[in-house]
Parts: sequence; structure tokens; C-alpha cells
Amino acid sequence: MRVGIIGASGYTGSELLRILYKHPEAEVVAASSRRYEGKEIWKLHRFLKGFYDLKFCDTNLKNFENCDVVFTPVPHGEAMQYVPQLLDAGIKVIDISADYRLDRETYEKVYGKKHEGYRKAVYGLTEIHRDEIAKSNLVANPGCYPTATILAAAPLAKLELIEKVIFDCKSGITGAGESPSSFTHYPNLHESIVPYNINKHRHYYEIVQELGRFQRDLEISFTPQVFPGSRGILCTAHVFLRGELSNEELYKIYEDFYKNCYFVRLQDEVSLSQVRGSNFCDIAIFSAGKRVVIVSAIDNLVKGASGQAIQNMNVMFGLDEKTGLDFPPLFP
Amino acid sequence: MRVGIIGASGYTGSELLRILYKHPEAEVVAASSRRYEGKEIWKLHRFLKGFYDLKFCDTNLKNFENCDVVFTPVPHGEAMQYVPQLLDAGIKVIDISADYRLDRETYEKVYGKKHEGYRKAVYGLTEIHRDEIAKSNLVANPGCYPTATILAAAPLAKLELIEKVIFDCKSGITGAGESPSSFTHYPNLHESIVPYNINKHRHYYEIVQELGRFQRDLEISFTPQVFPGSRGILCTAHVFLRGELSNEELYKIYEDFYKNCYFVRLQDEVSLSQVRGSNFCDIAIFSAGKRVVIVSAIDNLVKGASGQAIQNMNVMFGLDEKTGLDFPPLFP
Amino acid sequence: MRVGIIGASGYTGSELLRILYKHPEAEVVAASSRRYEGKEIWKLHRFLKGFYDLKFCDTNLKNFENCDVVFTPVPHGEAMQYVPQLLDAGIKVIDISADYRLDRETYEKVYGKKHEGYRKAVYGLTEIHRDEIAKSNLVANPGCYPTATILAAAPLAKLELIEKVIFDCKSGITGAGESPSSFTHYPNLHESIVPYNINKHRHYYEIVQELGRFQRDLEISFTPQVFPGSRGILCTAHVFLRGELSNEELYKIYEDFYKNCYFVRLQDEVSLSQVRGSNFCDIAIFSAGKRVVIVSAIDNLVKGASGQAIQNMNVMFGLDEKTGLDFPPLFP
Amino acid sequence: MRVGIIGASGYTGSELLRILYKHPEAEVVAASSRRYEGKEIWKLHRFLKGFYDLKFCDTNLKNFENCDVVFTPVPHGEAMQYVPQLLDAGIKVIDISADYRLDRETYEKVYGKKHEGYRKAVYGLTEIHRDEIAKSNLVANPGCYPTATILAAAPLAKLELIEKVIFDCKSGITGAGESPSSFTHYPNLHESIVPYNINKHRHYYEIVQELGRFQRDLEISFTPQVFPGSRGILCTAHVFLRGELSNEELYKIYEDFYKNCYFVRLQDEVSLSQVRGSNFCDIAIFSAGKRVVIVSAIDNLVKGASGQAIQNMNVMFGLDEKTGLDFPPLFP
Repeated sequence: MRVGIIGASGYTGSELLRILYKHPEAEVVAASSRRYEGKEIWKLHRFLKGFYDLKFCDTNLKNFENCDVVFTPVPHGEAMQYVPQLLDAGIKVIDISADYRLDRETYEKVYGKKHEGYRKAVYGLTEIHRDEIAKSNLVANPGCYPTATILAAAPLAKLELIEKVIFDCKSGITGAGESPSSFTHYPNLHESIVPYNINKHRHYYEIVQELGRFQRDLEISFTPQVFPGSRGILCTAHVFLRGELSNEELYKIYEDFYKNCYFVRLQDEVSLSQVRGSNFCDIAIFSAGKRVVIVSAIDNLVKGASGQAIQNMNVMFGLDEKTGLDFPPLFP
Repeated sequence: MRVGIIGASGYTGSELLRILYKHPEAEVVAASSRRYEGKEIWKLHRFLKGFYDLKFCDTNLKNFENCDVVFTPVPHGEAMQYVPQLLDAGIKVIDISADYRLDRETYEKVYGKKHEGYRKAVYGLTEIHRDEIAKSNLVANPGCYPTATILAAAPLAKLELIEKVIFDCKSGITGAGESPSSFTHYPNLHESIVPYNINKHRHYYEIVQELGRFQRDLEISFTPQVFPGSRGILCTAHVFLRGELSNEELYKIYEDFYKNCYFVRLQDEVSLSQVRGSNFCDIAIFSAGKRVVIVSAIDNLVKGASGQAIQNMNVMFGLDEKTGLDFPPLFP
Repeated sequence: MRVGIIGASGYTGSELLRILYKHPEAEVVAASSRRYEGKEIWKLHRFLKGFYDLKFCDTNLKNFENCDVVFTPVPHGEAMQYVPQLLDAGIKVIDISADYRLDRETYEKVYGKKHEGYRKAVYGLTEIHRDEIAKSNLVANPGCYPTATILAAAPLAKLELIEKVIFDCKSGITGAGESPSSFTHYPNLHESIVPYNINKHRHYYEIVQELGRFQRDLEISFTPQVFPGSRGILCTAHVFLRGELSNEELYKIYEDFYKNCYFVRLQDEVSLSQVRGSNFCDIAIFSAGKRVVIVSAIDNLVKGASGQAIQNMNVMFGLDEKTGLDFPPLFP
Repeated sequence: MRVGIIGASGYTGSELLRILYKHPEAEVVAASSRRYEGKEIWKLHRFLKGFYDLKFCDTNLKNFENCDVVFTPVPHGEAMQYVPQLLDAGIKVIDISADYRLDRETYEKVYGKKHEGYRKAVYGLTEIHRDEIAKSNLVANPGCYPTATILAAAPLAKLELIEKVIFDCKSGITGAGESPSSFTHYPNLHESIVPYNINKHRHYYEIVQELGRFQRDLEISFTPQVFPGSRGILCTAHVFLRGELSNEELYKIYEDFYKNCYFVRLQDEVSLSQVRGSNFCDIAIFSAGKRVVIVSAIDNLVKGASGQAIQNMNVMFGLDEKTGLDFPPLFP
């Protein structure tokens, strides 16, 4: 597979480059960056010295016309400028912006702008939509928070067991991107936990959309926070059930739901170190009768972005979904 | 005031020494440690070089008989061995273990041991029990989590507005004490958030006891977690109200409740850096109709332990409660 | 003393405000910021809520004409615009920019710009120039690295014992200021040590100037690095002596040199936690014959900037130099 | 190749397991731990869940008799109990303790104990001893500090250009192992740089031995320090040359020396993030005439331990040295 990346200068771009280097069936043949066009990739992403000779190209679609698949890790509002043309040229697209995750109307309301290149896409949470992804040419790769939260609650939502759920999420700061800001300024984050966008983060709508497919009437709260770390999202899901369930019953429900899911692991304890650098989502369950705490952990740049995108690519091209992704995490 | 400290080798002990050095009305005249008896205090607490000539004494009560007040930052189960004799000798006691926070029956159930020196104490959350503290000879200094959580929810509980509340708390690792363990091992915590004792932390019972005084029927969940930092507790309180309240109404409720409380500050945003090293509890309010997020931040070793203990001492001796404590936090 | 601060929006400014609040003889009466003029100080420096009602004024000298002393924590090149007029108005100045640390010629070479307001100043390393500071109206507060390095080597340089010395310094990131940049971007610093400006940092010239006063012919190397922390400079000084000295002889030399220096503490081990938030410089000595390792530790924002500036103020006004500064560090 | 690991419960052991899982020519068939014998590997190393079904065996050599090669990441003094028997059984050994790095006499002096199983080994710094390693049955894998320091200075030492060199090294705390101690206690390390074993670290003797092979008369200083991070060693080598060299000349010397070395990369800047999780040693050069600063960076658990051990295994078995190791670092 010939792979293109539109917008390869950020963390999601470099993470695609990192993982795809070892993918046995894929090769990155074009990677664009408006800002760094003409520069060798490794001169920006110095950790990749020795791995790529490629230079950043511009975003002109001609540079991608030989690709079988293109990833688009660009800011929202920008992907919609490229995606329709790529699809029309017969190229499969895995969008890593937010442009294709929500239905048109919700998107325009939440992101406050007209959608100028709307196409119907499959929501790329692989464990939930694997079959549709296999048949799709356009996959909307989920946000990092939605990945962690939906995987934590889906097994219960599917059985319509939830009364309400509060997702208290803690993310590493790479989720804020590679551009320096007051938010990512070291002294503002070190030794701190910073809640932000409380009750108004856009990822909320993805979570509602996807869990709502399973259970219409559940009540969802979502609080994003950053913690002093680079990678990882830990989601503490406080679930109020409609009836009591023991830890064993809960464990059984999760085991059944994820029985064919290589990348979801049930653990007695979870820790971000256990999943760092990998595509795994580790989940632990703590029951207290009608109230349950589900803790999920992912690497926000892998399962929460580039790794899941490659997992989706594998599914779209009929490969085993773990191809090129079956490496252990980096601990500690 | 002549002050004694039984158990001065840990973080709570050294924090008492740090703050009391500048207290205009108090002087530490005895500080014990079984392990370091005979050693100069500054040779253990090297940051205090130049501040104290005192040596650690043993815990024999004779060493404390000239004290007006004694602090007991010792493990639970140990304070009960000293407290009755101190009281009987006419010495005021501020217990910084867990031995006097709960009624006898609950204590014995929760801590799994017989209480061998029970006396009635006032729960030392100064903002809530100031008047009783002023008249008491025995104050049970609150746990760090209870301080952060109760201050976050008390104004709403007092008006019986709460349906349920989930306290999702993130603590710095000094809360685990000065003894190395797997839990405090650097590689196990760095870049991680570690939930622990989910649904079974002992501080839960303090929270239930104190909020229950205001509102009997509220439902409380409490999840403790450590984050990669040394000091501080950030409490994200997810509150479900019985009716809708705007941000302004909420703000007014908190402002009224805390109007005479120097150490509680309402802020638009909170951050652990804003309170580090100080006795402040900063609180921010984020409303979404019937659901509200209250975020509170304290330094676990100051307002969560030694600072509040000194605040209580001030109240017990008729001083302004902020005496020796009215210094700014250390930011960033 | 009525104190003014020109440029109070940064870390050095807020640190002056933090410490001066508790200074028994000084009161901040004016604090300027071009960017935040008209805004309440505590609304920018939220940790100071409750401590100051003052608003930022503009830098017009009229706002400072009632001051006895003015601090100028501004970027280099800017202080020279204010200092001469302040001095001419009879106001003492403690400059916390780099504008008055070097002789005019060296300054213009090193900083690559014409000095448009040159006046002769005393270099404000209090332990070295205490007597001249007492008589001066203009003190040039030292850089953070020069403070840590000069204090580490001065006792040996004074006795002309050094053949060469390599200062390998590790600084917390607050030294880079409060403006976000690629350098202070959390993911670029976490888990890393970043050498920068190797062989070309401007602080080198201060170190050469000051140690050169003691010993003309010593060879100095200086390598600055940042480490993943907020505050603190640890200086590892690798000294090659002209002859062998035992640890005892070395200790005696340092003890003699610093015998009247409250803020220099000789310790068996040093750690940044031991000095955090305080004006201390802790020093430890490790001898290996002709080669010696001297380790010094300061808080870069206190002894390395605002604390030492206040120490100098005390000396200039005939107060005990530790007035308002004799509080313990914040450990851990 | 059938691989055995004696002592697989620590960080070096789990890192071998992590990397070897993806090695195309090797399979771990036995992994011992006295403490965890009988336990599934993944139940201790939870990040490896799904990767290994193997249980820890005991250290009885029968468990390893089918191995082609055995790694011994055990404490010094322990490897000597296993190595001779393994060799006598025709099994190749890569010792990751310190037992075979030094000649017998130096070892006994430095480690203060009799060597009870001495055999002649090749020092396994692959870039230096590749040819001898290829012919050897016993390779002594270098210490982490020696790897970073020797690679930084070898090209200059080989040309006998060095007058003296000071290695100021900063290591992540995983170098101290997986057992909690005061040294690894989070509050003792966070926000700090901790020098330790100054002038008396045992790795000094490895450095002297290996650089001494190239240049007999050079003067070496070595100062180890830990920084608040988990993985990585950054070595700042302050080199005093016998004559002046320009940056270009220096660069050429390093390029020549490392021209066939896949795992040494010359970079304009180095950062621990650039090498994290990988077997690379990145090097940057900063000249100032006769004085030069060479900065090298490795992941202490990979190039500084398990990765280099696998690199040596590859060489011993005639494979390309990068087999199973040619994956990019994990940035950021």
C-alpha cells in the first residue's frame, strides 16, 4: 500500500511515520506540510534520522495521486478541503481531523462553521464499527477522549444498563499539539492537574453520538483535564447502573464484548505506562453495587490517533487489524 | 505558646516545623521521633539547617509536659496511646492521625482495631467547626481528601441541594508519606495517573460524616488517585443538583458560605500552583444546569494537614486564625 | 520603604510581590506592566488573590516618583531607558535586567547593542560585594547562573587555587520566562535534559568578570542546560586545583569565606528541594585530590533573582540582610 | 535462536522481553526469577499481557540447557555463579551484570569481593569491539554510563587528541532498578538533580579501561547524577584537547569513526526524546577551540543495557546487528 499523509509536521503525523516505518504492507510515499515544504522530514522530526529520506511536499493533490490511502491529520475545517477530491480520485481516506466524525448538522453547530465538503463517513472506532470500516472508503478517525471513554462504557451501554455516567478524563499534554501555548508552557502544567473546557469540550458530541447508538437515554457528563505528562489518557468512568452487578458479572460483560478485540485488554489495574507507545486500551473494573468505576487507559497518540488510524487502514484493506501494530508498549 | 510535636520525622512533621518557625506566637520546644531520637532535627530535615538547634526527643510524655499544645502527626492507632494522657495533663491536643476523626464505632469498623483511648473530639475543618474548635481541648485534624472534598460541597449540602456527588480526586504523592514503596517509586508514577483504593478508601467515612451533618440523604462517591507531582490535591466534584442553578446563583451560595473564611478563595480557574505551600483552598464553579462541576485545590501538606492544624491551634488559643499562615503561595 | 517594580508581570515580578508582602519594612506602592496596565495584579497573578489590591500602572516614571527604591525586572536593553532618570530623581535602583552587570564595552559586545544609559553600578552578589552595595544607589542584580557558579568557586578563586573550572549547570525552565516557546513546550522538556547556548551563553561574561577579580588567570568553562523542573539551578563545578586539598581543608576554606553569610549553607548533600522558595545557596564539597567537585544549589527565582534583589535592598537601606527573607525553604 | 533470561523480573529483563518479542530470529524460551518463580510473566510485567504465556522458572540451569544464548541481567556477584556452567554447556552468554567487564584484579578491588567464576570476556560495546564479539562466547555487556561516555569520547581518544575529559552525566532513575528506595522515592527526585557517588562510582573503571585502550595518558573525571525522568542518559563530555579543532574537523573525525555504525547518529542537537525506547546513541558536537563539548544521549535501558545486549547477540550469531532493533524511537 502506498500511503500519503497530508499534514505530517505535527505529533500525529510523526507518529504515523514512526509506526508505518515498520508496517510490512505499507510505505509512506508522500507527506505534506505547508510550513516545511521542501525540508527533509528527519530534519524536523530529528528522532527519525536514518528512517526517511523523503522531503515534505506541499498539499497539492497531485503529490498524492499515486496513493492507495491518505491520512489527514490536519486541523478541523481543513480536511474538508482535501477529502472529497481524494475520494473522487479513488483514494481511500482516513481523516484524523474532526471534520467527518459528526453528522453534518451537529458538526456545523459544534464547530461553528459551514461544512464545505461533506461526505458520509464511518466512525473509526475499530472495535465498534469494524464491519462498516471494512467496506468504507472514508473513515473518520475518533478523537482521543472519545476513544478512551466509549471503550470504557460501550459494553454496559449496549446492554442498556447505564443510568448515568461521568467521564473524568486526564490527558497528557501532547493532545494539545506541537505549538507552544500558555496551556503547554512547562511551569503552568508541572505539578498540576488542569481542568479545561468544562461542560463545553467538542469531543462530548462524539461520545454522545456513539454511546447513544447503543443506549438512547443515558445521561453523560465529560470533564477533560491535562496532567503533567506527555502521552496518555486515563479515563475514570463513574457509572451509575440501573441495577446491581458484581465484579464478576461486569468482567464477564466486558470479556464478551471485547472477545475478538486484540487491542482491548482487561487488567486488574491499569497504568498509562502499561500502554505507552502502543495501540492498546487497558480497562479495569471496580464495582460497588449499583455504582461502578471503570478505568481505561490509552496512549492518546496511538490508540487515540495514529495507531487507530493504521488499525482502520488494515481493516479497510482486508489485513489483520494488528498488522504493524502488534508491538509491546514501552514500560516504564 | 510552647508547642510539642509527637512524630516529627515525616512530611507533616517537617511542615509543622517549617510554618511554626515564622509563627509570631508559637515556639516548638519538643519534637519526638522514635527512629531519630537524639539526632539534630536539621540533620534529618536538611532544608531546615540554620532554623532549629533542637534534637529529636523520644515520645516519653515527660518531654512534652511543659507544652501548651501538642500536635500528633503519627500513624493511626498510635495517637490513641498519647492523647488521653496529654489531655489529662491539661495540654491541648491537635491530632493529625486518623484516631479521633470518626465516632468510636465507625472508627473501629473502618480501621479494624479497638480504640483504646477514645475521647470526644471536634472535627477540625476550621471553616465548618470554628466555634466548637475554639472551645475544645482535642481537635481531630481532617484528612487531606476530606478537606478538599468537604470544602467543595459543603455550601450546597448545607442548603440540601445535592442529589448525588462524585469526588474524583487527584493527589500529589507526598500524601503517601516519606517511606519509599512501590507506590512512590518514581518510574511507577511518572507520566501516570494512578487510581487506588477505589470504593474503599478510609477517608470516605469522614466525608460522609461531615457532609451528612448538613444533608442526610445525599449520595457520595469518592475516587482517590495520585498524579505525578509532589504536593497538592485537586478535587473535581461532579454534583447532580435537585434543581437547576445558574453560575451566578452558585457563586452567590459559595460567597455567602465562605464570607468570613480567609483561606477559601473563589477563583475563575484553579491550579495547584496557585495554592502550593499555602493554607488556601481555591474553588472554581462550572455550572451546566442541574449538573455542576466544582473544582477545589489545596496543598495536601498545608491546608490538608499541618497548615490547618496550625489554623486550629490559632482558633483554640483565641488568635486570629491566619496568624503565622498569611503568606502567599509559591508559584509557579 | 516605598517600593516600585517596573515590569511586574513576569516570574521575577511576581516573586518580588510574593516576598515583599511579608517584608516588615517595605511596601510595594507601584508595579507596572505595559501589557496589563489597568488590570488588578491578582487577576494576572491569581495566586496573589487577597494579597494586593494594586493595579498595574504604566511605566511612566511619575508613577514611581514617591518610591524609595525601584526594581527593574525587564528585558535587557529596556532597563537603560529608566535607570538614569530614576537615579537622577534620587531613587535607589536595583536592576534585575542585564544592563548594568558588565562594563560598558563588554556589555555592548556581548549584547550587541549600544548602551544608551550607562552608569556605574555595583555587582549585586551580596556575599561578595556587601560593603559596596551598602554605599551604592545602583545595584546590578546578578544573573541566576552567575550567582550559582560564582558562589561555588569564589572561595577557591580568592586563594588563587584554581587551574581550571567547568561549570555544568542545570536550570529549571522558569529561567526562560513566562512566555511560551518551543523551549518551554512541555513535551520538549519532560523526561529530558536540554543543553543550549553551549559556549555562547551571555552569563559567561559575568562569571569571568567576577571570578577574575579574585584570580586573573583561571580558565572557565560554562555549560547551561535545562532540566524538567520549574525552579532551581544546580551547578556542578568541576574544579582542577593547582595542588591537592583534602575535604577537610576545602570545607575549612568555604567555612571561612562564608562565615558571615546567612544565606550560604554548607551541607553534606545538596538538593534543589532543600532550597526551593528560599534565598539559600546550599553548597557541598567532594574532593578527589587535585580534582574537586563543588555542587551548589539555589532557587533561580529567589537567590538567583528576586530574593537576592531584596537582600541587596536590605543592605542598601542598612537593614539586616535577611529581613523578610529568613523563612525556610519549601520541602519537598 | 532459543533465548534464555536469568533474572527477568527487573527493568532490564522486561526490556529484553519487549524487544525480543519482535525479533525475527529469536524466541525467549526460558525466563527465571527466584522471587516470582511459577508466576506468569505478564502478571508481573502487566504491560506484556497478550505477548507471553511463559511463566518465570527458577534459576536452575536445567531450565536453560536448550538455549542457544542466555542473558544474565542479575546483580553483580550473582552472574559468576551461572556463567561458567552455561559456557561449559556450550551456551553463549551475554552477561548484563558487572561481573565480566573488568579484568579479575580490578573487579575484585572495585567490587570488593572475590571473583569465583572468572572467564575471559569481550567487552560488549558493539561499536568498539564488533569483530571480537563475533568470535566470542562470552560478552560482558557494558554499563549504561560507560556506553554513553565511551561513545562520546572514543573518536578523539583513538587519535590521542585528549588532554582531559570530564563526563557530567545525567541519568533517568530506572538506572537504579525496580526496587523502591529513598533514592527512587518520588518526592526526593521530582524537580531535582541529584549527584551521587561523586568520585567513587564503579562505572568509572570501565570508562578508564576502554578509553585507555585508545589513549593511555588521558585524564578522566566522571560525575553521575539522576534527573527527574524515567529513561535516558545524557552525557555532557567536557573535553580539553591537545590542539584546536574546528567543528568541521571534529564532525569529520566522528563521521569517520562511526561510518559503519547504524546506531550512532550525529545530530545538530540531541535530546533524550530523540532516542527514547530505541538503541540509538545520538551525538552532537560543540567546539570552542581547544575546549569541546560533546553531548551524547542514549536510552539507558536499551543502548545502555538490553538493546545493546541484543545487538551483541546479533553479532555473535552472524546476523545484521540491527536485526529486531531497527525501529524508531518513541517521541515525544
